[in-house]
Amino acid sequence: MTRMLRISGERLQGALKGFAEIGRREDGSICRLALSEEDRRGRDQIVTWMQELQMEIRVDGMGNIFGLWGGADPELSPVMMGSHIDSVATGGPLDGAYGVLGALEVIRTLQDAGVVTEHPLAIGVFTNEEGVRYTPDMMGSLVHAGGMPLEEALAVRGVDGSLLGEELRRIGYAGTYPCGELHPFAFLELHVEQGPCLDQEGISLGAVSGVNGISWQEVTLEGVPNHAGTTPMDMRADAGIGAARLIEEVRRIAESIPHQKGTCGMLEFFPNLINVVPQRAVFTVDLRNGDNRLLRRAEEAFASAAERVAREEGLELSRRQLVRFDPVAFHEALLESIEAAAASLGCSCRRILSGAGHDAQMMARICPAAMIFVPSKGGISHNPREETHPEHLALGVEALLETVLSLAGNSGTE
Amino acid sequence: MTRMLRISGERLQGALKGFAEIGRREDGSICRLALSEEDRRGRDQIVTWMQELQMEIRVDGMGNIFGLWGGADPELSPVMMGSHIDSVATGGPLDGAYGVLGALEVIRTLQDAGVVTEHPLAIGVFTNEEGVRYTPDMMGSLVHAGGMPLEEALAVRGVDGSLLGEELRRIGYAGTYPCGELHPFAFLELHVEQGPCLDQEGISLGAVSGVNGISWQEVTLEGVPNHAGTTPMDMRADAGIGAARLIEEVRRIAESIPHQKGTCGMLEFFPNLINVVPQRAVFTVDLRNGDNRLLRRAEEAFASAAERVAREEGLELSRRQLVRFDPVAFHEALLESIEAAAASLGCSCRRILSGAGHDAQMMARICPAAMIFVPSKGGISHNPREETHPEHLALGVEALLETVLSLAGNSGTE
Repeated sequence: MTRMLRISGERLQGALKGFAEIGRREDGSICRLALSEEDRRGRDQIVTWMQELQMEIRVDGMGNIFGLWGGADPELSPVMMGSHIDSVATGGPLDGAYGVLGALEVIRTLQDAGVVTEHPLAIGVFTNEEGVRYTPDMMGSLVHAGGMPLEEALAVRGVDGSLLGEELRRIGYAGTYPCGELHPFAFLELHVEQGPCLDQEGISLGAVSGVNGISWQEVTLEGVPNHAGTTPMDMRADAGIGAARLIEEVRRIAESIPHQKGTCGMLEFFPNLINVVPQRAVFTVDLRNGDNRLLRRAEEAFASAAERVAREEGLELSRRQLVRFDPVAFHEALLESIEAAAASLGCSCRRILSGAGHDAQMMARICPAAMIFVPSKGGISHNPREETHPEHLALGVEALLETVLSLAGNSGTE
Repeated sequence: MTRMLRISGERLQGALKGFAEIGRREDGSICRLALSEEDRRGRDQIVTWMQELQMEIRVDGMGNIFGLWGGADPELSPVMMGSHIDSVATGGPLDGAYGVLGALEVIRTLQDAGVVTEHPLAIGVFTNEEGVRYTPDMMGSLVHAGGMPLEEALAVRGVDGSLLGEELRRIGYAGTYPCGELHPFAFLELHVEQGPCLDQEGISLGAVSGVNGISWQEVTLEGVPNHAGTTPMDMRADAGIGAARLIEEVRRIAESIPHQKGTCGMLEFFPNLINVVPQRAVFTVDLRNGDNRLLRRAEEAFASAAERVAREEGLELSRRQLVRFDPVAFHEALLESIEAAAASLGCSCRRILSGAGHDAQMMARICPAAMIFVPSKGGISHNPREETHPEHLALGVEALLETVLSLAGNSGTE
């Protein structure tokens, strides 16, 4: 197929810029937490755009939004593009939003050119991908893929004490479309890399071969809240020292296992007083690897380090698994389609493993799925300084368009 | 002098028990934060008891309460006993309150026996010794000793945003007596050890020879809030790792310097999200030593460790001194009086250095001062499980009585 269609980089930039105003704070960061007022305004904007494109809109009981359009053969299942529009508390303009707005640009481009595909096309906008306000993350796509019952998801309490189901009704996105009813022919998610690899290597596109497995746990160490001025150093049971040692252990473990990542992002001391030896320390451990065997090795290494440190420091240890997702391998044929699209665009492309979780990994449970990455400057992510060169943003949407056309079949102009 | 006077251990127990109900919470801990409603109720009880003992009551502009009584020669300056009645957020029944209630028991015993001393006697109850709600600690005695202007103290903002001066007026203890006007002949503070030494060694009384110097600082490390799943381990600037390393350094430093103590009691991560590499870590360092030269060595060792770790981890470092008190040596003649009192009571006594700060160290700036310690079971302090054997509690008050009599001079019965 020779290339005839060009997306509009300018139109894409305009849409991204306008959309980034929704939830923007004074420091430039974007706060569009799942099911917040800002999320509602973002959803309203997406629905407005879908309506302008004459898409058929369905909202399911989880608040996932689906826009459907075209398809010369309406009996065929749709090729779905999509991502999410919720953000972390201090997010940037591209994470999630780029995949949704890029998909809208694909539909606009096809409509402008009067091109209709054999398969219908769909855009999926999934609820609560970030998992900041409600755990687990990727919840909307997880429910869609049948990995979590809807009732359970609606009953989740947020970190602010709110009930997910109530917040969903409050913002008007508790829909009636049955969860999981829409079964795509294939699913493609366009996203910024959120890591530094493509940017550092000067490669324009990533054909994402899979997603790291994720293991999240919460660790609690309990000691004795002695007086800081009177308790000899050798008579303490200092939960803060235990936490400090284990935070270092997590890095040591991550550095000793291939492709392993390990992070302690949250930590709280109790009673958290300047002159009291910490009685309790609670912290999180985030372990990721694309190889489940290696991920398990990291988990086991941490478990034994935690027991050893607790024993040596005279602390009581308890651990709680918060999230555990196996690594996901994306669909080989889709990866080859993405590589072919990159070749037809004449740009560099390499296979890459995603370190972050994405809705596409949930969709991979029910249909062929893959992702396209564009470089992110310096790999800065979950931060207002998140940035991708406009050329790369446009290129990613071109690649998405080409890949969608190759999957959905071009039945010619209307 | 032969012993004729006996305090009432039962009466002391009853007073301590009743007073511990003021601010008691469901878990048994006592919360009588400075200038809170609970502090007000505690002050009201003390004033009532002082009135029952016909003491002359003076409340100064800082809310310090003084009760004066007796003195065959009213021209002589008073021998003052005292401590504080504010507590930490989850305190025990003895810290501070024991020194005040023990002093009241001394006055009661003298009055019951009709004994009048040459010097008048006084009880001082100092505002905000704990420094939990308002910094610095030992504030009331500091202002009394002229170490902090009253206006500055009244303008201090609490951790809850409240203004000290307003809270003082609100609870009705912004008095009119001039700060520092009352200049004692000597000051004696009776207190539980708050450490394990006397208890472990089976010694009944401590003649406190001085107070550790205290150095409090707040340390901030600033890194980059990268994505936990996508940022390779060697490309991170993880403020949490920096804090963890320095928490361990503080212990290493404390263990390498004689009699040094070092504690990191408070720690906060920002943004404190499970999947974001900590951008910022803020923690406190509490260093104490009875020898100012050694304390400075610990401070210098920490300063260079902090710079080294920040450099190695690619973090920005800033440090802020919160409190710095030099070590205090108590008055030799008073220590000898305490030891003589212990001998007359036939009980074991040893000199001991206080690891915690006390009002007596501020009073030592303006008059001869010393402290008497009684053992604390297991050294548990700032905790509802704080406990001292009733016999030790009675013995401490006996020793206080004997010491006061030797200083104030027994002019015989009325």
